[in-house]
Amino acid sequence: MKKEVVLGIDLGGTYTKLGLVTKTGCILNNSRFDTNARMPFQDFLKKLESEVNDLKSNLGPEQQLIRIGIGAPNANPQSGNMENPPNFKWGRSVPLAKSVEKIFDLPVVLTNDANAAALGEMEYGLGKGMKNFVVLTLGTGLGGGIINNGELLTGEHGMAAELGHVNVDSNPNARQCNCGLKGCLETYVSVTGIRRTIFELIAEMTDDSPLRSISFDEMTGEIISDAALEGDTIALRAFEQTAEALGIQLADTAAHLDPEAFILLGGLSKAGDILLKPTIDAMERKLFNAYKGRIKVLISKTPSENAILGPAALAWNVEH
Amino acid sequence: MKKEVVLGIDLGGTYTKLGLVTKTGCILNNSRFDTNARMPFQDFLKKLESEVNDLKSNLGPEQQLIRIGIGAPNANPQSGNMENPPNFKWGRSVPLAKSVEKIFDLPVVLTNDANAAALGEMEYGLGKGMKNFVVLTLGTGLGGGIINNGELLTGEHGMAAELGHVNVDSNPNARQCNCGLKGCLETYVSVTGIRRTIFELIAEMTDDSPLRSISFDEMTGEIISDAALEGDTIALRAFEQTAEALGIQLADTAAHLDPEAFILLGGLSKAGDILLKPTIDAMERKLFNAYKGRIKVLISKTPSENAILGPAALAWNVEH
Repeated sequence: MKKEVVLGIDLGGTYTKLGLVTKTGCILNNSRFDTNARMPFQDFLKKLESEVNDLKSNLGPEQQLIRIGIGAPNANPQSGNMENPPNFKWGRSVPLAKSVEKIFDLPVVLTNDANAAALGEMEYGLGKGMKNFVVLTLGTGLGGGIINNGELLTGEHGMAAELGHVNVDSNPNARQCNCGLKGCLETYVSVTGIRRTIFELIAEMTDDSPLRSISFDEMTGEIISDAALEGDTIALRAFEQTAEALGIQLADTAAHLDPEAFILLGGLSKAGDILLKPTIDAMERKLFNAYKGRIKVLISKTPSENAILGPAALAWNVEH
Repeated sequence: MKKEVVLGIDLGGTYTKLGLVTKTGCILNNSRFDTNARMPFQDFLKKLESEVNDLKSNLGPEQQLIRIGIGAPNANPQSGNMENPPNFKWGRSVPLAKSVEKIFDLPVVLTNDANAAALGEMEYGLGKGMKNFVVLTLGTGLGGGIINNGELLTGEHGMAAELGHVNVDSNPNARQCNCGLKGCLETYVSVTGIRRTIFELIAEMTDDSPLRSISFDEMTGEIISDAALEGDTIALRAFEQTAEALGIQLADTAAHLDPEAFILLGGLSKAGDILLKPTIDAMERKLFNAYKGRIKVLISKTPSENAILGPAALAWNVEH
């Protein structure tokens, strides 16, 4: 009998990662290429085709590729399209699942990147053995993925868990979000969000800081984390404020879903305890009695180069 | 073959309603009695026993009572207990399901009142045919019940959907909630909440109003609704502010769950369009693009005397 494998594709605004993955989460071969989100969608498909064919050529005769799972920004699992992806020049509705299906003549399943990450954590990560948890990806934006009773919660229109766009500041002068709203969680709690906080604090505080010599465009999440680890007061204050906003939101999300755990992923989560401890403090302070002391907040152990495990879990998950 | 019926019990802080209900939602007999939440739990059980026996004596020889469903405040479906019910003098953990089971020697299923209401709407109300919706009971407090993919969402510890206790005001001077937190949704959006708003507005505004001659203790939801319907400016302003807070929260809850609809129940919802229209306006203004124009907000058509349909639906639901 042939040994079945799936192809996981993590389509990001900068890189597309792909790899062949077994049922138990072994990555057989993988690669990545520049997504080139500002070039036509057809160019992306051509590049993807050649990369996948390279991977497939390494499959042994006893191995068989049976399905493709894709995680992509703004992807709708019901339509199979990316809907209004703001950082892509691929049109308002990108028929991603159908296009990939046509090229490889294999079943394709699609979901948004944070939902895929939630499935990846359930199958191969910290969510193993858990039935109710929530993943938050803290990268350029903030994505959410909800596992309820062992299954991905997708909602009526396939678009559940857009946790980056809950409102955390209803003041008229709240931060403008890319989505058109103001005061969205991701304008505070994401790599972009903490960068905005840093610049607010540079204006507000007078403390000396190496961060004052770095422009907004050059200010990465790593620079901010490193400054905080070295005791920079502005960076530390920024993490405090970010954790406060995150913790308060986790308490509200707990009041909806009563999860066993929150699992944090993405650039901002790499700061570790500097983010985690004040987040837990703020959450516990705001948690309704029924949940106090019962909900874990964890940082994922999945390295970012293994982001294909999420889409792979999606592909395997179809069999359930 | 015997025709099966279930017993639905809606245990409230003031009244307990009970009734025999068929699979299709016909109420065969029903009654109600004073809960007397400040008297011992054993007194309540004795009264319940005699009331149930009265109802059962009206069953025909071909009818058979097979199961009991109970909706009660702060009830945990996993433990079968009411946990820390603040308005009851029955102790910290009330073994409700076990006690009722012992008396009648029948299977008992228990959930909190708002969860039961959600099941009732799904089986016999506006949620019929829907797979994803959220019920909010706007009474003395605010309760939530979430239907996801045709099933009640209960969470890891059985305590999901405590939507009355999401934070809507993080200011240190936000309203104190009975639960110990500050700024909880139910301190604004409930009969008690709008009453607090009325008194704030009486202090803030100078408009003449019949509401100025009514004490806090005497100010019911009906008095506030009636005043609004007659054009009272203070009452109308209170509904505007209440609807604004509710609409903003519905947008956040939508970003978690992507439901087909919100269904509002309870005293405050009886105000009808005075509450509904500004709630929808506020929600739409704050909704993330993916949901705009796609989520209904409805007022339940279940009369409050039929509240036993929720617990009855719970009892029938066990068979799925």
